[in-house]
Amino acid sequence: MSQLSAAFQNIAPRKPHAPAVILFSGGLDSSTILALAKDLAYAPYVLSVSYGQRHSSELAAAKHIAKKMGVIRHEVVHLDLTRFGGSALTDASIDIPTTPGKDQEIPVTYVPARNTILLSLALGWAESLGGLDIFYGANAVDYSGYPDCRPDYVASFEAMANLATKAGVEAIKPESRFRVHAPIISMTKAEIIHLGTTLGVDYSQTVSCYQANDLGEACGECESCRLRKIGFQQADLSDPTRYQLRSN
Amino acid sequence: MSQLSAAFQNIAPRKPHAPAVILFSGGLDSSTILALAKDLAYAPYVLSVSYGQRHSSELAAAKHIAKKMGVIRHEVVHLDLTRFGGSALTDASIDIPTTPGKDQEIPVTYVPARNTILLSLALGWAESLGGLDIFYGANAVDYSGYPDCRPDYVASFEAMANLATKAGVEAIKPESRFRVHAPIISMTKAEIIHLGTTLGVDYSQTVSCYQANDLGEACGECESCRLRKIGFQQADLSDPTRYQLRSN
Repeated sequence: MSQLSAAFQNIAPRKPHAPAVILFSGGLDSSTILALAKDLAYAPYVLSVSYGQRHSSELAAAKHIAKKMGVIRHEVVHLDLTRFGGSALTDASIDIPTTPGKDQEIPVTYVPARNTILLSLALGWAESLGGLDIFYGANAVDYSGYPDCRPDYVASFEAMANLATKAGVEAIKPESRFRVHAPIISMTKAEIIHLGTTLGVDYSQTVSCYQANDLGEACGECESCRLRKIGFQQADLSDPTRYQLRSN
Repeated sequence: MSQLSAAFQNIAPRKPHAPAVILFSGGLDSSTILALAKDLAYAPYVLSVSYGQRHSSELAAAKHIAKKMGVIRHEVVHLDLTRFGGSALTDASIDIPTTPGKDQEIPVTYVPARNTILLSLALGWAESLGGLDIFYGANAVDYSGYPDCRPDYVASFEAMANLATKAGVEAIKPESRFRVHAPIISMTKAEIIHLGTTLGVDYSQTVSCYQANDLGEACGECESCRLRKIGFQQADLSDPTRYQLRSN
């Protein structure tokens, strides 16, 4: 464990090399939490979901990074959420906005209940593996508009998980309860980038853009690109993101 | 609304013909709640999930019944849970038991976090539709061993749903909160059968068996068949279930 990870001692494994399921999009945030889970000496099981997102090159990046970072298993689950619609990320008829939304307003890129669906899948896999730890890269600072990125929500999901499952119900001791870790939920993008850089994350490979091209190159204009750019500026680090030519 | 449904007035739509998402397996319980939701004058949106269950003829039955009962839309979502394993329902190497389990013991047919995953999908669809009502055919009496069929769990999921979603967060008034209805959770199988029969459910078409054949004929031996048989006996009604020849 690195000195930096020592600050996260409260979320260290309860048993050596306990399995943890890490929700992993291949973006900046989830690559950082994967590096953190590894550094804390969890056995990393990495879960990505192909739900019909526009930015499918995100998944290609996820496969590449998971392999490079040395995970135990990487599952890509296919689940077509486009048939439900209701989001700019899954409905091609809704444009991706390139200007910041109003404070406290929920963006059109919000996908109805997506993160609850992803966490439920992570819960199912964790329970099958005999694991009790889930890592979730939610971030409340930069994404204050998303309801499912707030600490209250994470606590509520964790409480539900401990009623939902065989493992949770059979857990008598607090140390055998399910835990949903959201270690970067209160950090700024710059702080996340500092953490990941210290842990050796290669951010040139991660894709955060809502409309990246097939090569994983970012548009440089959407809300996700904007926040990421500002993050590198505020972290005082050069931005390794691969941008599409038109935005250079 | 029938006289019988009047007993369920507390779960009636808050607006006339409000959309409700009904989790629907094509079995006895969920066919009954679909009939109930219709009788209460919800606009029924029916959700089935093909998750790799052995009893896939259940889905064929679901399609048939949904069509016959006249729903607004029936979505069958494909989601491969077999890769996670951990259950006799999704792992062909685990036998389906034919003798009752011990009291309070969680059966091997429990699928890790399955119902949480299904409810999360229902939540996503409901939110996209602008609906605030989900129907869940859990039953705590006959399935006391399943953690996710208990009232505590349902209440916890409902609380989480209201933190997870745009609709839930924006809801200021109690009447615009998400509700997860589990109207048969405290009923015996016989009571459920009486309710459904009064509402006109054709139970000869529903498939409850864990290992039904391709024609939707039941084995007559698994736990699900056993509970269903006893239900018809206790309801003092003839059992219309189509059984496989070997069990007649």
